[in-house]
Amino acid sequence: MSKIEQLQTSLIKQGLDAAYISDPMTIGYLTGFYEDPIERVMALLVFADAEPFLFTPALEVEAAKGTGWDQPVYGYLDHENPYELIAKHVNEHAGAPINWGIEESHLTVERLLGLKRVLPNAKFSSNLTPTIEQMRLIKSADEIAKLNEAGKWADFMLEEGFNNLQLGRSEQEVAANLEYALKQHGIMHTSFDTLVQAGAHAAEPHGATSQNPIENNELVLFDLGCVVDGYCSDVSRTVAVGELNAKQRDIYQVCLEAQLTAQEVAKPGVTAEELDAIARKVITKAGYGEYFIHRLGHGLGMSDHEFPSIMEGNLLVLQPGMCFSIEPGIYIPGVAGVRIEDCVHITEHGCEPFTHTSKELKTFNL
Amino acid sequence: MSKIEQLQTSLIKQGLDAAYISDPMTIGYLTGFYEDPIERVMALLVFADAEPFLFTPALEVEAAKGTGWDQPVYGYLDHENPYELIAKHVNEHAGAPINWGIEESHLTVERLLGLKRVLPNAKFSSNLTPTIEQMRLIKSADEIAKLNEAGKWADFMLEEGFNNLQLGRSEQEVAANLEYALKQHGIMHTSFDTLVQAGAHAAEPHGATSQNPIENNELVLFDLGCVVDGYCSDVSRTVAVGELNAKQRDIYQVCLEAQLTAQEVAKPGVTAEELDAIARKVITKAGYGEYFIHRLGHGLGMSDHEFPSIMEGNLLVLQPGMCFSIEPGIYIPGVAGVRIEDCVHITEHGCEPFTHTSKELKTFNL
Repeated sequence: MSKIEQLQTSLIKQGLDAAYISDPMTIGYLTGFYEDPIERVMALLVFADAEPFLFTPALEVEAAKGTGWDQPVYGYLDHENPYELIAKHVNEHAGAPINWGIEESHLTVERLLGLKRVLPNAKFSSNLTPTIEQMRLIKSADEIAKLNEAGKWADFMLEEGFNNLQLGRSEQEVAANLEYALKQHGIMHTSFDTLVQAGAHAAEPHGATSQNPIENNELVLFDLGCVVDGYCSDVSRTVAVGELNAKQRDIYQVCLEAQLTAQEVAKPGVTAEELDAIARKVITKAGYGEYFIHRLGHGLGMSDHEFPSIMEGNLLVLQPGMCFSIEPGIYIPGVAGVRIEDCVHITEHGCEPFTHTSKELKTFNL
Repeated sequence: MSKIEQLQTSLIKQGLDAAYISDPMTIGYLTGFYEDPIERVMALLVFADAEPFLFTPALEVEAAKGTGWDQPVYGYLDHENPYELIAKHVNEHAGAPINWGIEESHLTVERLLGLKRVLPNAKFSSNLTPTIEQMRLIKSADEIAKLNEAGKWADFMLEEGFNNLQLGRSEQEVAANLEYALKQHGIMHTSFDTLVQAGAHAAEPHGATSQNPIENNELVLFDLGCVVDGYCSDVSRTVAVGELNAKQRDIYQVCLEAQLTAQEVAKPGVTAEELDAIARKVITKAGYGEYFIHRLGHGLGMSDHEFPSIMEGNLLVLQPGMCFSIEPGIYIPGVAGVRIEDCVHITEHGCEPFTHTSKELKTFNL
């Protein structure tokens, strides 16, 4: 059964007549055509009992047709009202569907109001976000293969980053160099802004890569990834430059133990919140609990941040095919930041990482 | 009057008690703190008659406080319910505001429902998007200076791109090289994916930079820009490699005339749709109207695609301080694509571009 047919089956089960899919990532997942239309309207319309169609800016019509999508693609020009055209095509395809499902996590209030104006008898009260999440949650073998390939290139990026460490070189130069090395291989997109953070700067877990120089006797944190064939990688390693003091060594080892412990126990049957708690317990026991201020992990796939979220309160039971990060971190303001991360997929009896760079503390004497 | 005070004045005029600002770009504009929280909840809450506050993921609290924002910043941890915390802080700051304005163009249905659940007596029926757009539409001298600086670096990127043209080198290599040159100067973000498109490939106006090689006797299109100090640049140039045929020359000259004509007449008092029509007329008259399939331009500022939209149907009267692109394009499938673009700001009597790379046809004999 194709993914579109799966969604149609789900619509019927939920008593829905139609789905308005607005998230470009979901459209990519369901049709094979991925494009971010930025501020323009783009949607996939799927009906319980009629042919689906893609609706895109005129600029994208040819690209959409070229991706193997063999159902209709309708375009609109910038000066045209997209909602009116959508209503026209909906009527032609499926009459006047009443009960619609929307992606509440993506659709803006403005666009919902736009739809309501042109389809005044329709009801948009069903949320398809859980349905879509459920579909995307379990990755197929083909998706796992793509994630493995993206992971391989993340390992390459790390290696290039390590090779580029030099005293006095800025975090930004190291990041620029490793990205350039990647692009030489035709991989043009990182999953997110490459992070290289040296010393106390790494205690800002969401701080940016800066012009600060690499200096001796500090930890340097790398968090990076790339997009290969529409799938993301994401990996973090923290390495030593020169001699570390006892505190730096300690937080590294505690963070490593938390990461290894969680990766060891991640398997079918464990819940997301249990996994988070297992890693957190290691860090809390060592006295650093207050410095681990984020969830253990996030899902990974076409997007770098998707479901499942590995955190307190998420009772989701892990199953084969689920893919997510295991990334404990310890950030002590003014001292140092350590994060160690692999993304994994759950297998029948455990989990396998997409990245394989060693997690033992690496020391660079520059 | 600070930007927050301007917004408060606007709330009072509209009879609103509170504003829920969710677009990170708007938050950056109003507070000086810009961060994309990806899927996490982040908001600026402004009240007609009480102190505003920022609500961010715990990870961002220190960063927000470090940007000069001297009002409260409240954080939340991943396992906490952000809406409940928002409701608590709202009650503490402002009692129980009834009439709320939201950014309908940004707020998702899910987040609106989240707010409604915790603030059951509140009404979220006012759209603040037009208010915010109006504020951001007219750039200050300080913003113009930042846009000029970003433009200067876009010119640098073009020059690096031209210098990197080589027969047989792929579009992607040229793009990687010019971006690397930019990053050497500490500018880490492009405004969007750098486009380098050679020959017929450039007839896909939203096609990506590919592994296709640069070849002789074709046009090569560059569309690129970068972010400097939070403001974007965006420029397009099309250049010749080797000898062009009559058709290639003709579409270049027609596109250039359309661009120059529009840039010449852009001034206060002209409407957005008139400007689009002026450029379109040049192209239509030359017989290429059907190949100019997008609007003439889009606004530019903190975002690469904002207001005003320079297109049919937009009756907006241009005023000093408005900033937008003038970018006619002619895309003939299987033949070539040409786009020539400067972004400009309207001055008292005309307009000034942010980029200054020559628009006369450049020919590279490689």
